[in-house]
Amino acid sequence: MRVMKFGGTSVGNAVAIDRTARIIADAYRGDGRLVAVVSAMSGVTNQLIAAAQAAAEGDEQAAARLQQELVERHRGAAAELIPTAARLEATVSRLTELATRCARLVESVHVLRDLSPRAQDWIVSFGERMSAVLIAAVLEERGIPAVPVDSDKVIVTDDHFGSANPLLDETRARAEAILVPLLEAGKLPVVTGFFGATPKGAVTTLGRGGSDFSASILAHALDADEVWIWTDVDGVMTADPRLVPSARTLPAISFAEATELAYFGAKVIHPRTMQPAAERGIPIWIKNTFNPEHPGTRIGPDTSSNGSVVKAITAIPGVSVITVEGSGFLSVADVTARVFETVGRTGVNVFMVFQASSQHSLGFVVRRTDASKVLRALEREFELDLLKGRVARLWEEPGMAIVAVVGAGMRGTPGVAGRVFGTLGQHRINIVAIAQGSSELNISFVIREDEVARAVPAIHDAFGLGGSAGERSAGS
Amino acid sequence: MRVMKFGGTSVGNAVAIDRTARIIADAYRGDGRLVAVVSAMSGVTNQLIAAAQAAAEGDEQAAARLQQELVERHRGAAAELIPTAARLEATVSRLTELATRCARLVESVHVLRDLSPRAQDWIVSFGERMSAVLIAAVLEERGIPAVPVDSDKVIVTDDHFGSANPLLDETRARAEAILVPLLEAGKLPVVTGFFGATPKGAVTTLGRGGSDFSASILAHALDADEVWIWTDVDGVMTADPRLVPSARTLPAISFAEATELAYFGAKVIHPRTMQPAAERGIPIWIKNTFNPEHPGTRIGPDTSSNGSVVKAITAIPGVSVITVEGSGFLSVADVTARVFETVGRTGVNVFMVFQASSQHSLGFVVRRTDASKVLRALEREFELDLLKGRVARLWEEPGMAIVAVVGAGMRGTPGVAGRVFGTLGQHRINIVAIAQGSSELNISFVIREDEVARAVPAIHDAFGLGGSAGERSAGS
Amino acid sequence: MRVMKFGGTSVGNAVAIDRTARIIADAYRGDGRLVAVVSAMSGVTNQLIAAAQAAAEGDEQAAARLQQELVERHRGAAAELIPTAARLEATVSRLTELATRCARLVESVHVLRDLSPRAQDWIVSFGERMSAVLIAAVLEERGIPAVPVDSDKVIVTDDHFGSANPLLDETRARAEAILVPLLEAGKLPVVTGFFGATPKGAVTTLGRGGSDFSASILAHALDADEVWIWTDVDGVMTADPRLVPSARTLPAISFAEATELAYFGAKVIHPRTMQPAAERGIPIWIKNTFNPEHPGTRIGPDTSSNGSVVKAITAIPGVSVITVEGSGFLSVADVTARVFETVGRTGVNVFMVFQASSQHSLGFVVRRTDASKVLRALEREFELDLLKGRVARLWEEPGMAIVAVVGAGMRGTPGVAGRVFGTLGQHRINIVAIAQGSSELNISFVIREDEVARAVPAIHDAFGLGGSAGERSAGS
Amino acid sequence: MRVMKFGGTSVGNAVAIDRTARIIADAYRGDGRLVAVVSAMSGVTNQLIAAAQAAAEGDEQAAARLQQELVERHRGAAAELIPTAARLEATVSRLTELATRCARLVESVHVLRDLSPRAQDWIVSFGERMSAVLIAAVLEERGIPAVPVDSDKVIVTDDHFGSANPLLDETRARAEAILVPLLEAGKLPVVTGFFGATPKGAVTTLGRGGSDFSASILAHALDADEVWIWTDVDGVMTADPRLVPSARTLPAISFAEATELAYFGAKVIHPRTMQPAAERGIPIWIKNTFNPEHPGTRIGPDTSSNGSVVKAITAIPGVSVITVEGSGFLSVADVTARVFETVGRTGVNVFMVFQASSQHSLGFVVRRTDASKVLRALEREFELDLLKGRVARLWEEPGMAIVAVVGAGMRGTPGVAGRVFGTLGQHRINIVAIAQGSSELNISFVIREDEVARAVPAIHDAFGLGGSAGERSAGS
Repeated sequence: MRVMKFGGTSVGNAVAIDRTARIIADAYRGDGRLVAVVSAMSGVTNQLIAAAQAAAEGDEQAAARLQQELVERHRGAAAELIPTAARLEATVSRLTELATRCARLVESVHVLRDLSPRAQDWIVSFGERMSAVLIAAVLEERGIPAVPVDSDKVIVTDDHFGSANPLLDETRARAEAILVPLLEAGKLPVVTGFFGATPKGAVTTLGRGGSDFSASILAHALDADEVWIWTDVDGVMTADPRLVPSARTLPAISFAEATELAYFGAKVIHPRTMQPAAERGIPIWIKNTFNPEHPGTRIGPDTSSNGSVVKAITAIPGVSVITVEGSGFLSVADVTARVFETVGRTGVNVFMVFQASSQHSLGFVVRRTDASKVLRALEREFELDLLKGRVARLWEEPGMAIVAVVGAGMRGTPGVAGRVFGTLGQHRINIVAIAQGSSELNISFVIREDEVARAVPAIHDAFGLGGSAGERSAGS
Repeated sequence: MRVMKFGGTSVGNAVAIDRTARIIADAYRGDGRLVAVVSAMSGVTNQLIAAAQAAAEGDEQAAARLQQELVERHRGAAAELIPTAARLEATVSRLTELATRCARLVESVHVLRDLSPRAQDWIVSFGERMSAVLIAAVLEERGIPAVPVDSDKVIVTDDHFGSANPLLDETRARAEAILVPLLEAGKLPVVTGFFGATPKGAVTTLGRGGSDFSASILAHALDADEVWIWTDVDGVMTADPRLVPSARTLPAISFAEATELAYFGAKVIHPRTMQPAAERGIPIWIKNTFNPEHPGTRIGPDTSSNGSVVKAITAIPGVSVITVEGSGFLSVADVTARVFETVGRTGVNVFMVFQASSQHSLGFVVRRTDASKVLRALEREFELDLLKGRVARLWEEPGMAIVAVVGAGMRGTPGVAGRVFGTLGQHRINIVAIAQGSSELNISFVIREDEVARAVPAIHDAFGLGGSAGERSAGS
Repeated sequence: MRVMKFGGTSVGNAVAIDRTARIIADAYRGDGRLVAVVSAMSGVTNQLIAAAQAAAEGDEQAAARLQQELVERHRGAAAELIPTAARLEATVSRLTELATRCARLVESVHVLRDLSPRAQDWIVSFGERMSAVLIAAVLEERGIPAVPVDSDKVIVTDDHFGSANPLLDETRARAEAILVPLLEAGKLPVVTGFFGATPKGAVTTLGRGGSDFSASILAHALDADEVWIWTDVDGVMTADPRLVPSARTLPAISFAEATELAYFGAKVIHPRTMQPAAERGIPIWIKNTFNPEHPGTRIGPDTSSNGSVVKAITAIPGVSVITVEGSGFLSVADVTARVFETVGRTGVNVFMVFQASSQHSLGFVVRRTDASKVLRALEREFELDLLKGRVARLWEEPGMAIVAVVGAGMRGTPGVAGRVFGTLGQHRINIVAIAQGSSELNISFVIREDEVARAVPAIHDAFGLGGSAGERSAGS
Repeated sequence: MRVMKFGGTSVGNAVAIDRTARIIADAYRGDGRLVAVVSAMSGVTNQLIAAAQAAAEGDEQAAARLQQELVERHRGAAAELIPTAARLEATVSRLTELATRCARLVESVHVLRDLSPRAQDWIVSFGERMSAVLIAAVLEERGIPAVPVDSDKVIVTDDHFGSANPLLDETRARAEAILVPLLEAGKLPVVTGFFGATPKGAVTTLGRGGSDFSASILAHALDADEVWIWTDVDGVMTADPRLVPSARTLPAISFAEATELAYFGAKVIHPRTMQPAAERGIPIWIKNTFNPEHPGTRIGPDTSSNGSVVKAITAIPGVSVITVEGSGFLSVADVTARVFETVGRTGVNVFMVFQASSQHSLGFVVRRTDASKVLRALEREFELDLLKGRVARLWEEPGMAIVAVVGAGMRGTPGVAGRVFGTLGQHRINIVAIAQGSSELNISFVIREDEVARAVPAIHDAFGLGGSAGERSAGS
């Protein structure tokens, strides 16, 4: 049994939906046991958030305008893909009803002038609800017994609205109660991606790109054989092709490598997707709706070594380096402990930490948008120490990017760091910070944001990642 | 006015003392205002500690044997250097009295079967006390009005026995009361290095190599023009010449660079020496007693750029990397805070910290001899988290070394890291960890201890540090 | 200038409003400079909260029903008190409009199935908005130039919805811009009590009984001469008259005593009311709308000593004693620190702390409704210590009450504790815990909740608080 | 088998030793299985400490003088009690050798000018070593096969010099190896009280009054039937007889009551004595050497209720109340946590904690001699909060005393607190602070030190503790 997830561009318009429906139909006719997970039509999620925010800020027309746009967009696609008039009418009626419910929520946000994370998650879920109805109808039109399923009935989560965590045991019980009977009856469930609900029923989203995560959670709950993530690229690439024209698709990588790539900025897959699948050893395939013959990338428990120690290069732009400069009065351990207690209280995510100097200065990397919050908290914490000179300075360097060079084979392979930093040197790119631990499968460093466009292609080139297979070895 | 410090090898035997006495005499005759700071004769400090430890552990003969050895060694040198019988007799009598006092302390340690840090500091101070008496007598013999001065009367410190911190204001007051009148009377004070005393008079040592520190403290207290550290090498070298035969002496480096080199293992100068001198902008010269014509190295407020971005390479062998591997349940900030609160309580010194991975693993470097203490403390702190899987693992990798590549010019110069790590790659030396922050003047990394002997020469070579001046530029 | 506040029962129906209007009119005619602060009609606040909660839980009719009830209740009172048809019509129209706006908010809560603290504060504010419109109209009818003023335009607060803290400087600026011109034009502002707004305009309430606080805040902002809190009792009493029939009204108490009484359960005044008035030394009078001739209680900077060391007795029922029993392995200081760090993280309010035993057991008092949250947090914190026997036990004793005996004169007066506890002994009431610090003006202890009804009258009696003045001295 | 301990006054001079020897001889002849534990002759411990301190501070003669005094004092008693010349000579020779060894330690302290806790413990142990030799010889003279045993061979402890903690398992093993064979051979071991040694053999003392503790530890190790503490009073008294002439000896109290009394100042027994005996349920008898017919006090697992709820009253003079006054900005929990973290770091013992006021002031009690250390630490911790007014004040009230009224029966008995505090009131004694928790068997409060002499007799009287049995009930 497979779980197949189709992202926003795979259901972005009538042509894309037609293509997606064909893929689903072929797969269903192949082995008959299939769960489809669908995202909202591309752009719809942003439209929903924008309308809800406008309503909260006082826009009187936001709800009405949203309703109209939702109906028109989905009805347009339905009209093209569902020739049977009765089915079209029933489908449009169902879509209209969903759009009306959604608009009512937005109108309420307008009245209360407040968009809570909880309300936003609920409103946003309507994108997937509508696309699931539409796609199930298109499949039915083609003779496939598809049934739209709302994932707030299946995926149970905690109440971290905006990036909820799945409760896997409860989800498994629900999947057995709801999805398994459908599968056993020969139906094809078309499940909404991206959201679940708390045990009490409040809708929660799983974070941006969460439909991948939904597919992995359902695969775990149903003991699926494989997860197929259908997207608009051929697979996980050696680098962002906008930066590196010669970037290639990787045939296979490990769960750990994929997690590292996703953590350090690769957008093809949601960072948390790997975890449920990896826990059960279920391989994840990345496939291209627009090029379904391409084999794609297999993310699996192991990765056949192909002689390449570096697999791919990713970057996170828009980060800041924050530095706390001691003055020797406080020990490294004490300053570090106090800095991270303080950062911990802000709830801000820390990407890298590095300390290595007699000056006792400690650096770390956070998102640019989190930096001033962190700085203010540190200034409060060290107010007295700054006054008394026990801490010399605290400052932020914005406009930075983290670049991560990833590959499990680099553990124990000499020369990788040399090639990475040698390449940067040849291109006269200054390195702001480096942190690399033993037993890691990546080298991460900080450079100026405006040098990413030169750095990534250069490293890609240095490891022959875009060239012919014969050149792809490092460290020699 | 200059403060000149002579290390153990500069006063190691009659020949060396003769040479040292000539240097002092020449300098005194030059401008007449001079303070000499002397270490114990080479080997004596270790002899004192060994005897005290043996006594504490029950050796009945330790005190008597020590007394005899101290007298013989110093009397031997005195006999060679002081032909005038009356002065020789007076000097030997004074040396014998010091040895007797010292032996009495060691005997008391034996009786109490306990060598406290306080008692050890006191016992150890007799090495310098005896060498100061000896050298002052030799100088007198040559017509120089030298006066031995015990530094526990001048340098005031806190009570951190074994590595005390100077109290600079109190020391200045004492220096004015004791040393200035001597200088004004045309005398040459021969001050014992290495130790001071608490305000209540308990003798304290300033840490291994503390005689350099003594000289810098006295220079600060006396507003000296220069500090000259006379030792057995020509100056600060580009690398340890035992590792790198082509290592060269550096003509000049900055206080910050010298501090970094000392912190990361360079033995020519005590790490804390730079601070008092730097505070007043007093240059420190490193000079060779055995080659006094060599200009040596000038450590000063600024350093004339000679086109070289890398100045020198140092290494600390005998360290361990400790890694705490999270499992995503705890945030990076929280784990880091708790790790370093715990390490802080152990009092152990941390050399490097690095974290950069989606695995939330955090690494840091401590001395091998401190590692098990730190590990045990972390195991206690994370006992419950390990049990519950919130922390995956804690482990030590022993047998490691930190290598630091130092040079103020590397800030903002691209290519240095590339050349460093590229060189390691070419020599197939695996890099265990890297941590480098922005605004630092060193690149530090961890490799296996047994690869230091290959790594340091290779980097030294790569930056042309040993070659002719023309080759010494990096980054091109 | 005076600020007069009228509570819910003072505006509870036509008869009460008539009485209140007369009091306001008399005061206005007296010196002409007056600000009235009004609560919602009694019961309306609860009605608003109940409707909002019902709506959030799915009640389809809650909003419509609420609108009808609000209009009917306020229109009924208006019809009785405003004979002039045109004014009545205009007033009812304004009241209806407010009820409609409120119902629309409740309907939105229904749609979103979520009552956020922010939405609740906004909805609840409509009780005061309607009563201010009604009372201003009644006053106008009587020839007083009253103007209803919404306090979200005047009182600026932080964003702790449900119990916001005033920002006094911003409030002063607003009061000068809005209220001072009205007062200078001879108008009588009828300001809504209980709520303010954040600087961005989100409505916030000041906590239960917050209208008292509103009056005190406005008095501070306007440098008023006095605050009069009109309520349904004659003043601050020596005890709750339902428990103690002989309880008397106190003619005067100090700010500190009133704060202590309010903190420990006296309901006549909101605990935080004293602070703004005390900061400017503005006396607060407690007066009875139903008995305006009674002099009431004056709460002021000082209190004329009338020979009585104990002023009043209060009680907080519904609390639990939580005890952490050490076993001597951990020090008192360490256990105490960890207990209160943990409690601090829960945000729960602690009423009393006591520790005095070789057993190292530490006790403290929280509300019964907070106890299980605190216990769970402590169980997590001490999980390992309980397992290893370093902490013996953690437990809750529910069904307890704190009783506080208050009076500034007890500082330095012997015999008060003796009389208090002696009285309890005579009535065979067991004392569960006592905590009293030096320099305090109260004695607080814990007894079983079901003994409050015996304890309070007995102590009241013992100090002669209800008797004739001649008997009111203690300690002799 | 019994362990009998004889304190300093029981071995203070020839007459006392004669009496003690008779008691031991009688007991030995009774059942033959007996271990005697002896303290140093009264005054000797202080003499040893004084000599060691004088030596450390430079007194040249301290060691010689000490040796002479020790020999004279013990030889004097020996001469009176051992008529047999050969035995006397052998005993004096052994005593002289011990005094010489001790003097040598003191001389070494003099040379090193430093009295470490470790050296002090070793020196102090010679008091018991000499008395054990003396008493064993006196017993031998009377035909009892007594053998002096040094407790550093038997009692194993950790290395907290000055108040070491026993390691019971190791001690049991040693007792089985050393004492059991002696007992089985019919010998009477005369064991030195007060000290043990670390596993490595460094001598450690168990704290003032530690000979009681030694006896209890040995009873635990040997599974003794009873411990008899022979002292100079008839037993545990209802109060200090110097304060309360009518104080009576209690026939029986529980382990818990005795612990509480010892913790709160009763000097008859060392606070930690109860723990090893209680762990094995071994009763401890307090008996009077000078009045051996008196039954004494039995401290046991249970205590026959004799109708008295209050058993005894103790006091700790010389304490200070420290108060931290918040200002409402910080929560009670947060202030309490920070205060006790800070106090915990100082290592100071806290006797009582109390907090109960809207002012958020927190009080606690420490020894006067610890107060300034604690205050300074708190001032540092709250430096910024004091500056910003988040903490209003920190202060010490010296000259205070804790009084504890103890009795297991007071749990659940109403009226005890009333009688206690009523009595204080009648005597016009002001109560500074009270802290009492549920489930405790004592009421503790703070009064002025100079009122202890009035307070304790008054309470003693109020509970009829000194009167005839008929009056001894409370709470009615």
